[in-house]
Amino acid sequence: MDRRNFLKTAGAGSALLALTSLPLFAITPPPKTRPNFVIILGDDLGYGDLGVFGHPTIRTPNLDRMAQEGQKWTNFYAAASVCTPSRAGIMTGRLPIRSGMCDDKHRVLFPDSAGGLPQSEITIARALKNAGYATACVGKWHLGHLPQYLPTRHGFDYYFGIPYSNDMDRVGGKGREAFAEQKREFWNVPLMRNEAIIERPANQNTITKRYTEETIKFIKSNKDKPFFVYLAHNLPHVPLFVSDDFADISLRGLYGDVVEEIDSGVGQILQTLKDEKIDENTLVVFTSDNGPWLSFNELGGSAGLLREGKGCTFEGGMREPTIFRWPGTIKPGVVADIGATMDLFPTFCKLAGIEIPGDRIMDGFDISPTLTEAKKSPRDIMFFYRGTQLYAIRKGNYKAHFFTQISYVGDQTKYTHEPPLLYDLGVDPGEKYNIADKHPDIIADLRQEVAKHQANLVPGENQLVKRIGQN
Amino acid sequence: MDRRNFLKTAGAGSALLALTSLPLFAITPPPKTRPNFVIILGDDLGYGDLGVFGHPTIRTPNLDRMAQEGQKWTNFYAAASVCTPSRAGIMTGRLPIRSGMCDDKHRVLFPDSAGGLPQSEITIARALKNAGYATACVGKWHLGHLPQYLPTRHGFDYYFGIPYSNDMDRVGGKGREAFAEQKREFWNVPLMRNEAIIERPANQNTITKRYTEETIKFIKSNKDKPFFVYLAHNLPHVPLFVSDDFADISLRGLYGDVVEEIDSGVGQILQTLKDEKIDENTLVVFTSDNGPWLSFNELGGSAGLLREGKGCTFEGGMREPTIFRWPGTIKPGVVADIGATMDLFPTFCKLAGIEIPGDRIMDGFDISPTLTEAKKSPRDIMFFYRGTQLYAIRKGNYKAHFFTQISYVGDQTKYTHEPPLLYDLGVDPGEKYNIADKHPDIIADLRQEVAKHQANLVPGENQLVKRIGQN
Repeated sequence: MDRRNFLKTAGAGSALLALTSLPLFAITPPPKTRPNFVIILGDDLGYGDLGVFGHPTIRTPNLDRMAQEGQKWTNFYAAASVCTPSRAGIMTGRLPIRSGMCDDKHRVLFPDSAGGLPQSEITIARALKNAGYATACVGKWHLGHLPQYLPTRHGFDYYFGIPYSNDMDRVGGKGREAFAEQKREFWNVPLMRNEAIIERPANQNTITKRYTEETIKFIKSNKDKPFFVYLAHNLPHVPLFVSDDFADISLRGLYGDVVEEIDSGVGQILQTLKDEKIDENTLVVFTSDNGPWLSFNELGGSAGLLREGKGCTFEGGMREPTIFRWPGTIKPGVVADIGATMDLFPTFCKLAGIEIPGDRIMDGFDISPTLTEAKKSPRDIMFFYRGTQLYAIRKGNYKAHFFTQISYVGDQTKYTHEPPLLYDLGVDPGEKYNIADKHPDIIADLRQEVAKHQANLVPGENQLVKRIGQN
Repeated sequence: MDRRNFLKTAGAGSALLALTSLPLFAITPPPKTRPNFVIILGDDLGYGDLGVFGHPTIRTPNLDRMAQEGQKWTNFYAAASVCTPSRAGIMTGRLPIRSGMCDDKHRVLFPDSAGGLPQSEITIARALKNAGYATACVGKWHLGHLPQYLPTRHGFDYYFGIPYSNDMDRVGGKGREAFAEQKREFWNVPLMRNEAIIERPANQNTITKRYTEETIKFIKSNKDKPFFVYLAHNLPHVPLFVSDDFADISLRGLYGDVVEEIDSGVGQILQTLKDEKIDENTLVVFTSDNGPWLSFNELGGSAGLLREGKGCTFEGGMREPTIFRWPGTIKPGVVADIGATMDLFPTFCKLAGIEIPGDRIMDGFDISPTLTEAKKSPRDIMFFYRGTQLYAIRKGNYKAHFFTQISYVGDQTKYTHEPPLLYDLGVDPGEKYNIADKHPDIIADLRQEVAKHQANLVPGENQLVKRIGQN
């Protein structure tokens, strides 16, 4: 049976309600259809690493086409500049500081970490699952690998992937070269299905391909109910691995091979949605978790014209190449308004007719009016944390840096700026020309926003300091 | 009468010839149709300044669409990193050193220059005009402003524009700020029609709009013969000027306003071709003359992830955002092969069935097989001159810098590199990671190519040193 027809029939009641134009009850009306949601995440993929975001030699025809058919967002942020807090932001719709998923020394979770995303947090998967969605997490989790923190305990019906980064559990190889050697025995990372380890070390050469296959299988099996797939590739994070089909195909070298394999997977997933006749009922989002890991030179990505990369609060650390696609519903175009991965949670809730959790502070905004009606994004502000510390704030096009500390290459001093550095990101996306002197009024306003933000901020219990075997 | 039908009838003979598959005569067969050619050139527009080349806040929907419908070339070069020699390269299909249109001290022609493109040079316009094309030059010429050097003396039926850069003849304003003040009285640049000055100072606020209008008028008037328009905008070269319709529309500030006005003009020109039903018989090329003028900070453009800008032989100085469009003939896609503005001359000749001048060294390659059949570009090599000096060479993806000297900001030392710096531009488009140590064989090969090139190089008489009133 054609799912679209089914949903049209099922939605007839609400369509009639809409025709009367009378709000009968003060509740969110059920949507005509419940759209499917697919998030596809790159890992350390830089702002400048897709063709449509300007890379000259990485070929991403599928993502380029996705951008043409959908919306390309050019000012879209991760919640943090490293993996664990960034992913906490996606899952909770909240700044990672609130869930305790960030730390100044331990930047992310490690294999000896005892912490993870607390059960008190409501994930985007939990909210959708409670509303009847089939939910799957495919790929890297990195929000806790002890059983109580796994995706299956956070609202996902199904999990297939690695629980933390692909460069952890290193047991072989020497120096930086090992990150390009594609020796899976160097990295003892486990591959899990649901809560069981099924392969160790994970065969990372085939992992991207298998993630795509698992995603497609899940989509096909669940096409008759609304579904949510969170496909979090663990590449192009180093160590780089690629399948035989994509070996040596890219002018950009191994890094390019890896990105082109991910792009091919995106193409296969979009084709599956078309073949199954559900692409007009599915919102697909492509983005990345943080900026490129510049320490690894050509094994890391590029932030394009943006400053710096992974680990820091300059734009290169947190602005991500982001594309939304939903044929027939999303208005195609380029959006330069501000968005963030934290916005996905409330946006999906809105589109699915689900209440947004009302018992906690949500940092995400419902950006569906921008997606579907090309209205101005409701997000006008962004906070830039490094670990637990607020380093910078953006409001409109103005960004003030109170502190700066570059990525992991060179001088690691934390600099204090008084007055803060001020950049107009519209005119100066590369953060080159400090205009603080000219705009004391704007700085005053940004300080006030920071004060307001910090006044109601209750940091969650730090999850990243906890170690297995310690109290 | 529909021009396409006319041409189909006229071309019936050659179509029959083709059917027999027998080369009866050793001549270039006349093409079925003679396509129209339109070159649209930006001035100091950087590699990263279009949406489709990665800029986050400059909106270029028309150029983005042109790239989707056509070919986006990501490794396409200007012949030089400053105006005069770059334009000589476009016009002649030859390195500017051969025509004497470059110099180490006087980088370009100035109002007191007495030289210009010699009559011994054959321009692309001359070749096309000789074959029956209607030809127009609209915009900045900068190849000599004494009468004997004007476009009308170099194969153009019609000229409308300024004879040199828009920042010359400065008569007012102070410092760098004046370049954003939009005071036309600061710059006593003349606007010419054919060989007469019709306005001085040129009203630069309306100049971009008028260039577009002149182009459209010429196209409409000449749609019944094959035509060639060379539209060389004199912006976004500083001083920046924009018409009322585009004032303050861009998040990127005045520079963005200017680029968005140019983009709008591209849209109008493409629409005209459609309306006149000649877009399937017209090849339109968009590119730029050299990299962004970084000395002007936010008043200059961005080379995206490329290194440096205008004036130097790093990629940011000479790689240009380039798009080819010819619906039904050009195979849409992204081309990462090498191309150069010097290739337009032989390519247009090939597509029009015109002999390429056989009495001189041409540096351009016929890239039509890449355009129409997606074959590998015949250009595998590129020479990078600063003035009259060869600084670098690219062959395949390897580029060797024998000398480097950055743009105009900071240390202006000319550095000699022995061995040369070597970069793999496929893997490392930003020229960050010198790999000379690993590839002595490649360096040896590149040295040989340089020797071969220099062995047959006869520099033309230097045109840039000549001064009015001097012998």
